Amino acid sequence: MMRGILYGVGLGPGAADLMTLRALDCLRKVDCIILPRKDEKSLSVSWHIARETVGPIPGQERLSLNFPMSRDPKVTSHAWNIAIKEIKDRIFAGKSVAFISLGDPFIYSSFIYLYEHAQKSWPEIEIKVIPGVSSITAAPIAAGIPIADGQERIAIIPAVYNKDDLRTIIRMFDTILLMKASSVMSEIIEILESEGLLDKSVYVASATMDKEQIVTDIRDIKGKRGMYFSMVVIAKKNHSGVLFGNGEKKE
Amino acid sequence: MMRGILYGVGLGPGAADLMTLRALDCLRKVDCIILPRKDEKSLSVSWHIARETVGPIPGQERLSLNFPMSRDPKVTSHAWNIAIKEIKDRIFAGKSVAFISLGDPFIYSSFIYLYEHAQKSWPEIEIKVIPGVSSITAAPIAAGIPIADGQERIAIIPAVYNKDDLRTIIRMFDTILLMKASSVMSEIIEILESEGLLDKSVYVASATMDKEQIVTDIRDIKGKRGMYFSMVVIAKKNHSGVLFGNGEKKE
Repeated sequence: MMRGILYGVGLGPGAADLMTLRALDCLRKVDCIILPRKDEKSLSVSWHIARETVGPIPGQERLSLNFPMSRDPKVTSHAWNIAIKEIKDRIFAGKSVAFISLGDPFIYSSFIYLYEHAQKSWPEIEIKVIPGVSSITAAPIAAGIPIADGQERIAIIPAVYNKDDLRTIIRMFDTILLMKASSVMSEIIEILESEGLLDKSVYVASATMDKEQIVTDIRDIKGKRGMYFSMVVIAKKNHSGVLFGNGEKKE
Repeated sequence: MMRGILYGVGLGPGAADLMTLRALDCLRKVDCIILPRKDEKSLSVSWHIARETVGPIPGQERLSLNFPMSRDPKVTSHAWNIAIKEIKDRIFAGKSVAFISLGDPFIYSSFIYLYEHAQKSWPEIEIKVIPGVSSITAAPIAAGIPIADGQERIAIIPAVYNKDDLRTIIRMFDTILLMKASSVMSEIIEILESEGLLDKSVYVASATMDKEQIVTDIRDIKGKRGMYFSMVVIAKKNHSGVLFGNGEKKE
Protein backbone atom coordinates (compact mmCIF):
# COMPACT_ATOMS: atom_id res chain seq x y z
CA MET A 1 0.00 0.00 0.00
CA MET A 2 1.26 3.46 -0.86
CA ARG A 3 1.81 5.72 2.09
CA GLY A 4 1.67 9.47 2.33
CA ILE A 5 3.67 11.96 4.32
CA LEU A 6 2.73 13.60 7.60
CA TYR A 7 3.71 17.27 7.83
CA GLY A 8 3.78 19.36 10.98
CA VAL A 9 3.56 22.93 9.76
CA GLY A 10 4.40 25.95 11.92
CA LEU A 11 2.32 28.97 10.91
CA GLY A 12 4.12 31.56 12.99
CA PRO A 13 2.73 33.61 15.86
CA GLY A 14 -0.44 34.96 14.26
CA ALA A 15 0.11 37.48 11.48
CA ALA A 16 -0.46 35.72 8.16
CA ASP A 17 2.71 37.09 6.56
CA LEU A 18 4.87 35.64 9.32
CA MET A 19 4.36 32.22 7.72
CA THR A 20 7.49 30.87 6.03
CA LEU A 21 7.79 30.27 2.30
CA ARG A 22 8.18 26.55 3.02
CA ALA A 23 5.00 26.40 5.10
CA LEU A 24 2.99 28.16 2.41
CA ASP A 25 4.38 25.93 -0.31
CA CYS A 26 3.55 22.82 1.72
CA LEU A 27 0.00 23.96 2.48
CA ARG A 28 -0.62 24.60 -1.20
CA LYS A 29 0.61 21.13 -2.23
CA VAL A 30 -0.70 18.65 0.35
CA ASP A 31 -3.78 16.50 -0.24
CA CYS A 32 -5.28 17.31 3.14
CA ILE A 33 -4.90 20.07 5.72
CA ILE A 34 -6.01 19.23 9.27
CA LEU A 35 -7.66 22.24 10.88
CA PRO A 36 -7.37 21.81 14.65
CA ARG A 37 -10.11 23.41 16.74
CA LYS A 38 -11.21 23.26 20.36
CA ASP A 39 -14.65 21.80 19.68
CA GLU A 40 -17.49 21.65 17.15
CA LYS A 41 -18.54 25.19 18.01
CA SER A 42 -15.09 26.75 17.53
CA LEU A 43 -13.26 27.88 14.46
CA SER A 44 -9.68 26.79 13.99
CA VAL A 45 -7.46 29.64 15.21
CA SER A 46 -4.52 28.40 13.21
CA TRP A 47 -6.52 28.00 10.01
CA HIS A 48 -7.84 31.53 10.49
CA ILE A 49 -4.21 32.68 10.15
CA ALA A 50 -3.35 30.69 7.04
CA ARG A 51 -6.66 30.54 5.19
CA GLU A 52 -6.51 33.66 3.08
CA THR A 53 -2.85 33.33 2.17
CA VAL A 54 -3.15 29.68 1.15
CA GLY A 55 -6.30 30.42 -0.85
CA PRO A 56 -8.55 27.84 -2.51
CA ILE A 57 -6.78 24.71 -3.82
CA PRO A 58 -9.00 22.55 -6.06
CA GLY A 59 -9.24 18.97 -4.80
CA GLN A 60 -7.59 19.68 -1.46
CA GLU A 61 -9.40 18.39 1.61
CA ARG A 62 -9.66 20.61 4.68
CA LEU A 63 -10.63 18.53 7.66
CA SER A 64 -11.64 20.07 10.98
CA LEU A 65 -10.75 17.91 13.97
CA ASN A 66 -11.45 18.57 17.64
CA PHE A 67 -8.65 18.89 20.18
CA PRO A 68 -10.38 19.77 23.44
CA MET A 69 -8.49 21.89 26.00
CA SER A 70 -8.99 19.47 28.86
CA ARG A 71 -6.83 17.64 31.33
CA ASP A 72 -9.39 14.88 31.67
CA PRO A 73 -7.85 11.89 29.87
CA LYS A 74 -11.31 10.55 28.95
CA VAL A 75 -12.10 13.72 27.06
CA THR A 76 -8.73 14.08 25.37
CA SER A 77 -8.30 10.38 24.58
CA HIS A 78 -11.67 10.18 22.89
CA ALA A 79 -10.94 13.17 20.67
CA TRP A 80 -7.40 12.02 19.93
CA ASN A 81 -8.55 8.53 18.97
CA ILE A 82 -10.86 10.03 16.37
CA ALA A 83 -8.17 12.41 15.11
CA ILE A 84 -5.56 9.70 14.85
CA LYS A 85 -7.88 7.42 12.93
CA GLU A 86 -8.82 10.15 10.43
CA ILE A 87 -5.18 11.08 9.87
CA LYS A 88 -4.01 7.47 9.63
CA ASP A 89 -6.70 6.58 7.08
CA ARG A 90 -5.47 9.33 4.78
CA ILE A 91 -1.75 8.73 5.19
CA PHE A 92 -2.10 4.99 4.62
CA ALA A 93 -4.17 5.70 1.53
CA GLY A 94 -1.10 7.49 0.14
CA LYS A 95 -2.20 11.04 0.86
CA SER A 96 -0.04 13.82 2.24
CA VAL A 97 -1.51 15.39 5.38
CA ALA A 98 -0.47 18.69 6.99
CA PHE A 99 -1.23 19.38 10.64
CA ILE A 100 -1.02 23.13 11.23
CA SER A 101 0.27 24.65 14.45
CA LEU A 102 0.32 28.20 15.68
CA GLY A 103 3.92 29.23 16.26
CA ASP A 104 6.25 26.27 15.96
CA PRO A 105 5.11 22.61 15.82
CA PHE A 106 7.68 21.46 18.39
CA ILE A 107 6.99 24.02 21.07
CA TYR A 108 3.87 23.67 23.26
CA SER A 109 1.88 22.37 20.29
CA SER A 110 -0.60 19.50 19.93
CA PHE A 111 1.46 18.33 16.98
CA ILE A 112 4.05 16.92 19.39
CA TYR A 113 1.59 14.20 20.49
CA LEU A 114 0.69 13.32 16.94
CA TYR A 115 4.40 13.22 16.03
CA GLU A 116 5.19 10.89 18.90
CA HIS A 117 2.24 8.68 18.14
CA ALA A 118 3.16 8.50 14.46
CA GLN A 119 6.80 7.69 15.24
CA LYS A 120 5.81 4.89 17.59
CA SER A 121 2.82 3.42 15.77
CA TRP A 122 3.55 4.14 12.11
CA PRO A 123 7.34 3.77 11.84
CA GLU A 124 7.01 3.18 8.10
CA ILE A 125 5.70 6.66 7.28
CA GLU A 126 7.68 9.78 6.56
CA ILE A 127 7.24 12.78 8.88
CA LYS A 128 8.45 16.26 8.02
CA VAL A 129 8.33 19.15 10.45
CA ILE A 130 8.42 22.75 9.19
CA PRO A 131 9.55 25.16 11.91
CA GLY A 132 7.68 28.40 12.45
CA VAL A 133 8.29 31.78 14.07
CA SER A 134 7.50 31.21 17.72
CA SER A 135 5.89 33.62 20.17
CA ILE A 136 9.10 33.14 22.19
CA THR A 137 10.69 35.76 19.99
CA ALA A 138 7.60 37.38 18.45
CA ALA A 139 6.20 38.53 21.82
CA PRO A 140 9.43 40.20 23.02
CA ILE A 141 9.75 41.86 19.60
CA ALA A 142 6.20 43.18 19.89
CA ALA A 143 7.15 44.61 23.28
CA GLY A 144 10.46 46.04 21.98
CA ILE A 145 12.52 43.88 24.34
CA PRO A 146 15.61 42.19 22.85
CA ILE A 147 15.40 38.69 24.27
CA ALA A 148 19.09 37.88 24.74
CA ASP A 149 22.52 38.89 23.57
CA GLY A 150 26.06 37.87 24.37
CA GLN A 151 26.17 35.55 27.36
CA GLU A 152 22.60 36.04 28.54
CA ARG A 153 20.47 33.12 29.62
CA ILE A 154 16.84 32.58 28.76
CA ALA A 155 14.29 30.58 30.75
CA ILE A 156 10.91 29.65 29.35
CA ILE A 157 8.44 28.53 31.99
CA PRO A 158 4.80 27.48 31.66
CA ALA A 159 2.46 29.16 34.13
CA VAL A 160 2.35 26.26 36.57
CA TYR A 161 5.34 26.14 38.91
CA ASN A 162 6.09 26.47 42.58
CA LYS A 163 7.02 29.90 43.88
CA ASP A 164 10.45 28.95 45.21
CA ASP A 165 11.44 27.49 41.88
CA LEU A 166 10.33 30.61 40.08
CA ARG A 167 12.34 32.78 42.46
CA THR A 168 15.47 30.69 41.90
CA ILE A 169 15.00 30.77 38.15
CA ILE A 170 14.46 34.52 38.12
CA ARG A 171 17.74 34.98 39.97
CA MET A 172 19.74 32.65 37.70
CA PHE A 173 18.50 33.89 34.32
CA ASP A 174 18.66 37.19 32.43
CA THR A 175 15.45 36.88 30.48
CA ILE A 176 12.48 34.87 31.71
CA LEU A 177 9.38 34.16 29.65
CA LEU A 178 6.34 33.08 31.64
CA MET A 179 3.96 31.37 29.23
CA LYS A 180 0.16 31.26 29.62
CA ALA A 181 0.66 33.62 32.51
CA SER A 182 -2.84 35.08 32.83
CA SER A 183 -4.22 32.56 35.28
CA VAL A 184 -1.50 33.07 37.89
CA MET A 185 -0.90 36.80 37.47
CA SER A 186 -1.36 37.64 41.17
CA GLU A 187 1.39 35.26 42.21
CA ILE A 188 3.66 36.52 39.45
CA ILE A 189 3.15 40.14 40.47
CA GLU A 190 3.89 39.31 44.11
CA ILE A 191 7.17 37.59 43.24
CA LEU A 192 8.29 40.26 40.77
CA GLU A 193 7.48 42.99 43.28
CA SER A 194 9.55 41.37 46.00
CA GLU A 195 12.44 40.82 43.56
CA GLY A 196 12.27 44.45 42.42
CA LEU A 197 11.53 43.45 38.85
CA LEU A 198 8.07 44.91 38.20
CA ASP A 199 9.61 47.68 36.09
CA LYS A 200 11.45 45.14 33.99
CA SER A 201 8.39 43.05 33.16
CA VAL A 202 5.91 43.42 30.33
CA TYR A 203 2.70 41.52 29.59
CA VAL A 204 2.17 40.57 25.95
CA ALA A 205 -0.94 38.85 24.61
CA SER A 206 -1.67 37.67 21.06
CA ALA A 207 1.59 39.09 19.69
CA THR A 208 1.42 40.02 15.98
CA MET A 209 -2.34 39.33 15.84
CA ASP A 210 -5.00 42.00 15.34
CA LYS A 211 -5.88 41.88 19.02
CA GLU A 212 -2.25 42.19 20.17
CA GLN A 213 -2.02 43.66 23.65
CA ILE A 214 1.07 45.08 25.37
CA VAL A 215 0.80 46.10 29.03
CA THR A 216 3.91 47.69 30.49
CA ASP A 217 2.59 47.91 34.05
CA ILE A 218 1.67 44.31 34.66
CA ARG A 219 -0.22 45.23 37.83
CA ASP A 220 -2.97 46.39 35.46
CA ILE A 221 -3.57 42.74 34.55
CA LYS A 222 -4.17 41.58 38.12
CA GLY A 223 -7.54 39.99 38.63
CA LYS A 224 -8.45 40.21 34.98
CA ARG A 225 -8.97 36.98 33.11
CA GLY A 226 -6.30 37.19 30.45
CA MET A 227 -6.04 35.83 26.97
CA TYR A 228 -4.78 32.35 26.24
CA PHE A 229 -1.88 33.43 24.05
CA SER A 230 -0.25 35.55 26.72
CA MET A 231 3.20 35.85 28.18
CA VAL A 232 5.08 37.88 30.76
CA VAL A 233 8.51 38.91 29.53
CA ILE A 234 11.00 39.66 32.31
CA ALA A 235 14.23 41.18 30.99
CA LYS A 236 16.53 41.91 33.92
CA LYS A 237 19.56 43.32 32.23
CA ASN A 238 20.04 46.77 30.84
CA HIS A 239 21.32 45.89 27.42
CA SER A 240 24.61 47.28 26.31
CA GLY A 241 26.80 44.45 25.18
CA VAL A 242 29.10 44.29 22.24
CA LEU A 243 29.65 48.01 21.74
CA PHE A 244 31.49 47.93 25.03
CA GLY A 245 33.35 44.74 24.27
CA ASN A 246 31.57 42.33 26.59
CA GLY A 247 29.45 40.48 24.12
CA GLU A 248 29.78 37.66 21.67
CA LYS A 249 27.54 37.55 18.69
CA LYS A 250 26.50 35.83 15.55
CA GLU A 251 26.80 37.63 12.27
CA MET B 1 14.62 66.34 6.56
CA MET B 2 12.83 63.17 5.60
CA ARG B 3 13.78 60.11 7.56
CA GLY B 4 13.69 56.49 6.57
CA ILE B 5 12.88 53.36 8.48
CA LEU B 6 15.29 50.90 10.06
CA TYR B 7 14.26 47.26 9.68
CA GLY B 8 15.70 44.32 11.57
CA VAL B 9 14.90 41.33 9.43
CA GLY B 10 15.09 37.74 10.67
CA LEU B 11 16.02 35.36 7.86
CA GLY B 12 15.40 32.12 9.69
CA PRO B 13 17.92 29.43 10.60
CA GLY B 14 19.59 28.91 7.22
CA ALA B 15 17.40 27.29 4.59
CA ALA B 16 16.27 30.01 2.18
CA ASP B 17 12.63 28.90 2.22
CA LEU B 18 12.43 29.27 5.98
CA MET B 19 12.31 33.03 5.48
CA THR B 20 8.89 34.54 6.22
CA LEU B 21 6.69 36.21 3.63
CA ARG B 22 7.08 39.48 5.53
CA ALA B 23 10.89 39.28 5.49
CA LEU B 24 10.97 38.60 1.77
CA ASP B 25 8.54 41.42 1.03
CA CYS B 26 10.61 43.84 3.13
CA LEU B 27 13.90 42.85 1.47
CA ARG B 28 12.39 43.39 -1.95
CA LYS B 29 11.10 46.87 -1.06
CA VAL B 30 13.81 48.59 0.99
CA ASP B 31 16.27 51.07 -0.47
CA CYS B 32 19.27 49.44 1.14
CA ILE B 33 20.10 46.01 2.56
CA ILE B 34 23.00 45.84 5.00
CA LEU B 35 24.99 42.65 4.50
CA PRO B 36 26.80 41.90 7.75
CA ARG B 37 30.07 39.99 7.46
CA LYS B 38 32.94 39.14 9.78
CA ASP B 39 35.60 41.05 7.85
CA GLU B 40 36.64 42.20 4.36
CA LYS B 41 37.68 38.68 3.43
CA SER B 42 34.40 37.04 4.41
CA LEU B 43 31.11 36.72 2.63
CA SER B 44 27.94 37.59 4.49
CA VAL B 45 26.49 34.31 5.79
CA SER B 46 23.05 35.80 6.19
CA TRP B 47 23.03 37.33 2.69
CA HIS B 48 24.09 33.95 1.31
CA ILE B 49 20.77 32.63 2.65
CA ALA B 50 18.55 35.38 1.26
CA ARG B 51 20.34 36.38 -1.93
CA GLU B 52 18.81 34.03 -4.45
CA THR B 53 15.27 34.29 -3.10
CA VAL B 54 15.30 38.10 -2.99
CA GLY B 55 16.80 38.28 -6.46
CA PRO B 56 18.02 41.43 -8.21
CA ILE B 57 16.13 44.63 -7.35
CA PRO B 58 16.97 47.56 -9.66
CA GLY B 59 18.17 50.59 -7.72
CA GLN B 60 18.53 48.77 -4.42
CA GLU B 61 21.81 49.24 -2.60
CA ARG B 62 23.46 46.24 -0.97
CA LEU B 63 26.08 47.41 1.48
CA SER B 64 28.58 45.04 3.10
CA LEU B 65 29.62 46.11 6.58
CA ASN B 66 32.11 44.45 8.91
CA PHE B 67 31.10 43.13 12.32
CA PRO B 68 34.21 41.45 13.71
CA MET B 69 33.81 38.52 16.11
CA SER B 70 35.95 39.99 18.81
CA ARG B 71 35.66 40.78 22.49
CA ASP B 72 38.22 43.54 22.21
CA PRO B 73 36.25 46.78 22.53
CA LYS B 74 38.77 48.63 20.33
CA VAL B 75 38.14 46.25 17.47
CA THR B 76 34.36 46.12 17.84
CA SER B 77 33.91 49.85 18.54
CA HIS B 78 35.86 50.85 15.46
CA ALA B 79 33.79 48.60 13.20
CA TRP B 80 30.53 49.61 14.86
CA ASN B 81 31.28 53.31 14.53
CA ILE B 82 31.71 52.87 10.78
CA ALA B 83 28.57 50.75 10.52
CA ILE B 84 26.47 53.17 12.53
CA LYS B 85 27.58 56.12 10.43
CA GLU B 86 26.80 54.36 7.15
CA ILE B 87 23.36 53.32 8.37
CA LYS B 88 22.57 56.72 9.88
CA ASP B 89 23.54 58.57 6.69
CA ARG B 90 21.04 56.54 4.71
CA ILE B 91 18.18 56.64 7.21
CA PHE B 92 18.50 60.40 7.72
CA ALA B 93 18.52 60.85 3.93
CA GLY B 94 15.05 59.29 3.94
CA LYS B 95 16.03 55.80 2.87
CA SER B 96 14.72 52.54 4.29
CA VAL B 97 17.48 50.26 5.50
CA ALA B 98 17.20 46.56 6.34
CA PHE B 99 19.72 44.87 8.60
CA ILE B 100 19.54 41.11 8.06
CA SER B 101 20.03 38.58 10.85
CA LEU B 102 20.34 34.83 10.78
CA GLY B 103 17.53 33.36 12.85
CA ASP B 104 15.69 36.05 14.77
CA PRO B 105 16.90 39.67 15.13
CA PHE B 106 16.22 39.76 18.89
CA ILE B 107 18.03 36.58 19.88
CA TYR B 108 21.84 36.54 20.03
CA SER B 109 22.02 38.84 17.01
CA SER B 110 24.16 41.89 16.24
CA PHE B 111 20.96 43.72 15.37
CA ILE B 112 20.21 44.09 19.08
CA TYR B 113 23.10 46.56 19.45
CA LEU B 114 22.03 48.55 16.44
CA TYR B 115 18.44 48.57 17.74
CA GLU B 116 19.52 49.86 21.13
CA HIS B 117 21.79 52.45 19.60
CA ALA B 118 19.05 53.65 17.25
CA GLN B 119 16.48 53.85 20.06
CA LYS B 120 18.82 55.90 22.21
CA SER B 121 20.50 58.11 19.62
CA TRP B 122 17.86 58.45 16.91
CA PRO B 123 14.56 58.56 18.82
CA GLU B 124 12.89 60.26 15.87
CA ILE B 125 13.24 57.32 13.49
CA GLU B 126 10.90 54.39 13.05
CA ILE B 127 12.26 50.90 13.74
CA LYS B 128 10.48 47.73 12.66
CA VAL B 129 11.62 44.28 13.66
CA ILE B 130 10.54 41.23 11.65
CA PRO B 131 10.84 38.03 13.67
CA GLY B 132 12.40 34.94 12.13
CA VAL B 133 12.46 31.21 12.72
CA SER B 134 15.14 30.71 15.34
CA SER B 135 17.59 27.83 15.69
CA ILE B 136 16.02 27.40 19.14
CA THR B 137 13.27 25.42 17.49
CA ALA B 138 14.89 24.62 14.12
CA ALA B 139 17.77 22.66 15.68
CA PRO B 140 15.55 20.42 17.87
CA ILE B 141 13.29 19.84 14.85
CA ALA B 142 16.30 18.81 12.76
CA ALA B 143 17.21 16.35 15.53
CA GLY B 144 13.61 15.09 15.85
CA ILE B 145 13.34 16.24 19.47
CA PRO B 146 10.11 18.01 20.46
CA ILE B 147 11.36 20.93 22.49
CA ALA B 148 8.60 21.22 25.11
CA ASP B 149 5.01 20.30 25.72
CA GLY B 150 2.55 20.71 28.55
CA GLN B 151 4.29 22.00 31.66
CA GLU B 152 7.87 21.51 30.53
CA ARG B 153 10.50 24.15 31.12
CA ILE B 154 13.12 25.26 28.64
CA ALA B 155 16.52 26.79 29.45
CA ILE B 156 18.69 28.41 26.80
CA ILE B 157 22.28 28.89 27.89
CA PRO B 158 25.24 30.32 26.00
CA ALA B 159 28.36 28.17 26.18
CA VAL B 160 30.06 30.20 28.91
CA TYR B 161 28.83 29.36 32.41
CA ASN B 162 30.15 27.88 35.59
CA LYS B 163 29.74 24.15 36.07
CA ASP B 164 27.68 24.34 39.26
CA ASP B 165 25.18 26.64 37.59
CA LEU B 166 24.86 24.32 34.64
CA ARG B 167 24.28 21.36 36.96
CA THR B 168 21.53 23.23 38.83
CA ILE B 169 19.90 24.33 35.60
CA ILE B 170 19.98 20.82 34.16
CA ARG B 171 18.20 19.54 37.25
CA MET B 172 15.51 22.26 37.22
CA PHE B 173 14.62 22.20 33.52
CA ASP B 174 13.15 19.61 31.15
CA THR B 175 14.83 20.80 27.97
CA ILE B 176 18.16 22.60 27.95
CA LEU B 177 19.71 24.17 24.88
CA LEU B 178 23.43 24.87 25.13
CA MET B 179 24.28 27.43 22.47
CA LYS B 180 27.69 27.74 20.76
CA ALA B 181 28.61 24.58 22.60
CA SER B 182 31.58 23.42 20.54
CA SER B 183 34.29 25.20 22.46
CA VAL B 184 33.37 23.69 25.83
CA MET B 185 32.30 20.23 24.72
CA SER B 186 34.60 18.36 27.13
CA GLU B 187 33.06 20.06 30.14
CA ILE B 188 29.55 19.49 28.81
CA ILE B 189 30.20 15.80 28.25
CA GLU B 190 31.62 15.42 31.76
CA ILE B 191 28.57 17.02 33.36
CA LEU B 192 26.06 15.14 31.22
CA GLU B 193 27.82 11.86 31.93
CA SER B 194 27.70 12.39 35.68
CA GLU B 195 24.03 13.40 35.47
CA GLY B 196 23.22 10.29 33.41
CA LEU B 197 22.02 12.40 30.49
CA LEU B 198 24.43 11.50 27.70
CA ASP B 199 21.75 9.36 26.04
CA LYS B 200 19.31 12.25 26.13
CA SER B 201 21.63 14.75 24.45
CA VAL B 202 22.14 15.49 20.77
CA TYR B 203 24.61 17.80 19.03
CA VAL B 204 23.17 19.84 16.17
CA ALA B 205 25.21 22.15 13.95
CA SER B 206 24.03 24.40 11.11
CA ALA B 207 20.43 23.17 11.36
CA THR B 208 18.49 23.41 8.06
CA MET B 209 21.62 24.45 6.15
CA ASP B 210 23.36 22.31 3.53
CA LYS B 211 26.07 21.39 5.98
CA GLU B 212 23.63 20.41 8.74
CA GLN B 213 25.17 17.96 11.17
CA ILE B 214 23.38 15.82 13.77
CA VAL B 215 25.49 13.78 16.19
CA THR B 216 23.51 11.55 18.56
CA ASP B 217 26.50 10.39 20.58
CA ILE B 218 27.94 13.70 21.65
CA ARG B 219 31.15 12.03 22.85
CA ASP B 220 32.05 11.90 19.17
CA ILE B 221 32.40 15.69 19.21
CA LYS B 222 34.92 15.76 22.06
CA GLY B 223 38.17 17.41 21.13
CA LYS B 224 36.95 18.40 17.69
CA ARG B 225 36.68 22.07 16.92
CA GLY B 226 33.00 22.43 16.20
CA MET B 227 31.04 24.74 14.00
CA TYR B 228 29.90 28.14 15.11
CA PHE B 229 26.20 27.54 14.62
CA SER B 230 26.08 24.57 16.97
CA MET B 231 23.94 23.56 19.88
CA VAL B 232 23.58 20.69 22.33
CA VAL B 233 19.93 19.77 22.89
CA ILE B 234 19.29 18.00 26.20
CA ALA B 235 15.73 16.67 26.44
CA LYS B 236 15.31 14.88 29.75
CA LYS B 237 11.73 13.77 29.61
CA ASN B 238 10.28 10.87 27.74
CA HIS B 239 7.43 12.65 26.04
CA SER B 240 3.95 11.34 26.57
CA GLY B 241 1.74 14.21 27.60
CA VAL B 242 -1.75 15.01 26.57
CA LEU B 243 -2.82 11.58 25.37
CA PHE B 244 -2.61 10.51 28.98
CA GLY B 245 -4.30 13.59 30.32
CA ASN B 246 -1.35 15.36 31.92
CA GLY B 247 -0.76 18.05 29.37
CA GLU B 248 -2.10 21.42 28.47
CA LYS B 249 -1.81 22.63 24.95
CA LYS B 250 -2.44 25.32 22.43
CA GLU B 251 -4.69 24.59 19.49
